[in-house]
Amino acid sequence: MEKTYIFGHKNPDTDSITSSLVMANLETKLGRNVESCALGTPNKETEYVLNYLGIEAPRVLGENEVPDGSNVILVDHNNPEETISNIDKVNVLKVVDHHCLKLSTSYPLYYRAEPVGCTETVMYKLYKENGVEIDKKNATLMLSAIISDTLLFKSPTCTPEDVEIAKELSKIAGIDCESYGLEMLKAGTDLSSFTIDEILSLDAKQVSLKDVKTVINQVNTASIPDVMELKEKLEAGMTEQIESKGLDLFMLLITDIVNSNSQVIALGKRADLVEKSYGVKLENNTALLKGVVSRKKQVIPVMTENA
Amino acid sequence: MEKTYIFGHKNPDTDSITSSLVMANLETKLGRNVESCALGTPNKETEYVLNYLGIEAPRVLGENEVPDGSNVILVDHNNPEETISNIDKVNVLKVVDHHCLKLSTSYPLYYRAEPVGCTETVMYKLYKENGVEIDKKNATLMLSAIISDTLLFKSPTCTPEDVEIAKELSKIAGIDCESYGLEMLKAGTDLSSFTIDEILSLDAKQVSLKDVKTVINQVNTASIPDVMELKEKLEAGMTEQIESKGLDLFMLLITDIVNSNSQVIALGKRADLVEKSYGVKLENNTALLKGVVSRKKQVIPVMTENA
Repeated sequence: MEKTYIFGHKNPDTDSITSSLVMANLETKLGRNVESCALGTPNKETEYVLNYLGIEAPRVLGENEVPDGSNVILVDHNNPEETISNIDKVNVLKVVDHHCLKLSTSYPLYYRAEPVGCTETVMYKLYKENGVEIDKKNATLMLSAIISDTLLFKSPTCTPEDVEIAKELSKIAGIDCESYGLEMLKAGTDLSSFTIDEILSLDAKQVSLKDVKTVINQVNTASIPDVMELKEKLEAGMTEQIESKGLDLFMLLITDIVNSNSQVIALGKRADLVEKSYGVKLENNTALLKGVVSRKKQVIPVMTENA
Repeated sequence: MEKTYIFGHKNPDTDSITSSLVMANLETKLGRNVESCALGTPNKETEYVLNYLGIEAPRVLGENEVPDGSNVILVDHNNPEETISNIDKVNVLKVVDHHCLKLSTSYPLYYRAEPVGCTETVMYKLYKENGVEIDKKNATLMLSAIISDTLLFKSPTCTPEDVEIAKELSKIAGIDCESYGLEMLKAGTDLSSFTIDEILSLDAKQVSLKDVKTVINQVNTASIPDVMELKEKLEAGMTEQIESKGLDLFMLLITDIVNSNSQVIALGKRADLVEKSYGVKLENNTALLKGVVSRKKQVIPVMTENA
């Protein structure tokens, strides 16, 4: 049986890495030949999770490492801009996701997306539907991703189903959500070892807001002023990317995971879009977006509407 | 609670009509305010099913009858070309389908598609997952659609899951698949009351095979020669549509549901695509495509590859 590659999106977050591992476990249990892979190395938050469990990160797939014609399963994404470059030349067997629809295919496939906070919430249901037991390791992986994506249940993307399933998972994992979750989220805010360029690509998504070519980068922190100390250097790096990628807008969201606000730095000829979308005035390219923590729910749709 | 409209594709077939009814029953049982609708009247095969059960067809939605901003659930389709014209201005809450992916959204939604022969096969699983009992009426609706879409399990689109679930449903419905199914399929082949234009729109799909603008129309029959008696008139109608719609190709598949072959009539400047795709020579615009019964599996992908 030919091997199927399972992977999440580029610049993988905790949901992408853990969903790849958890999906691979499910498929293996169901007798299929799969490999858990990733389109990048784990971030510090995900490293915290993998270290906690003492397990290895999925193998990172290099450019063009998935041959044309291969079978693949996508988790936590479906957008062609966020996946392997030859996505239109492979056979997508399945998608398990919680994002908007962007993929187009000429063949039917298994597609399972739900408007919940985290792919792992859907994955939990797949285990139940297939009658596959969720062990402590997989429960910890799922729970970590739900905490990550919902910022400990405080993001507007969080649904009652995410909370309920997280509660179930915390019992299996023997984990206290609050203390474990805060430690995990804080691990992800440590920027000390990164260069400016690395910070700017940690969780960057390139999206088209109608015809406005945009990169939206999000950095979690427990202290906005700490990150703002790097403002000038960050702006220089953003300007470089705007030029090299021909962007209309680069938004850096510095998200305070404790108080649930984001400081935005916006550069590019369409920075006015931020002002228009949130009714704020950018001063020195920056403004506080009160209550904004979710790129998916509070940034992309709002900005698209105003573009 | 605002009403949600549930409907299948334009030119509805048995799967589209029954899935709308069956999904509406499920959503109602789960406490939601929905209405089963349709984007056209039932064909003769579907009429046979509704008469058998003594139930009404879903209400047909007129052009622009679904207001912008409404909540909708799509069944048995997701292609914007096959649905309401303001699909990008409504809120698609859910999709339950078994076709390739064509819809694009700027918001997450519940999307459930599986590469099986019929939407109702997926619907059966949704009932099970939600712990909702399948009564005799809904079992008959589901079973009828599976028989229709798989041509009594003979189409290459038919999967072991379709067969297994149909078996379960036939027990609940108290129906013998073979005898009921053949009667139902035959009811759908009665063309006596239709004008040529009506025959040409009974089950027509407009698709782009790469850049080849094509209409593929399929008519089921128990006797190819009976339909071929109308050849000249059908060709005149096809030529008219090619001109009025600016088509590159119009394919009429006359599918023998007993022997599982299709006679094709192909007109338009890209009729060569049929010859190239199937290694046949069109004589007087027609050829026999042996073993070809599935537009989805044996026509659209093959023609796309050769376009």
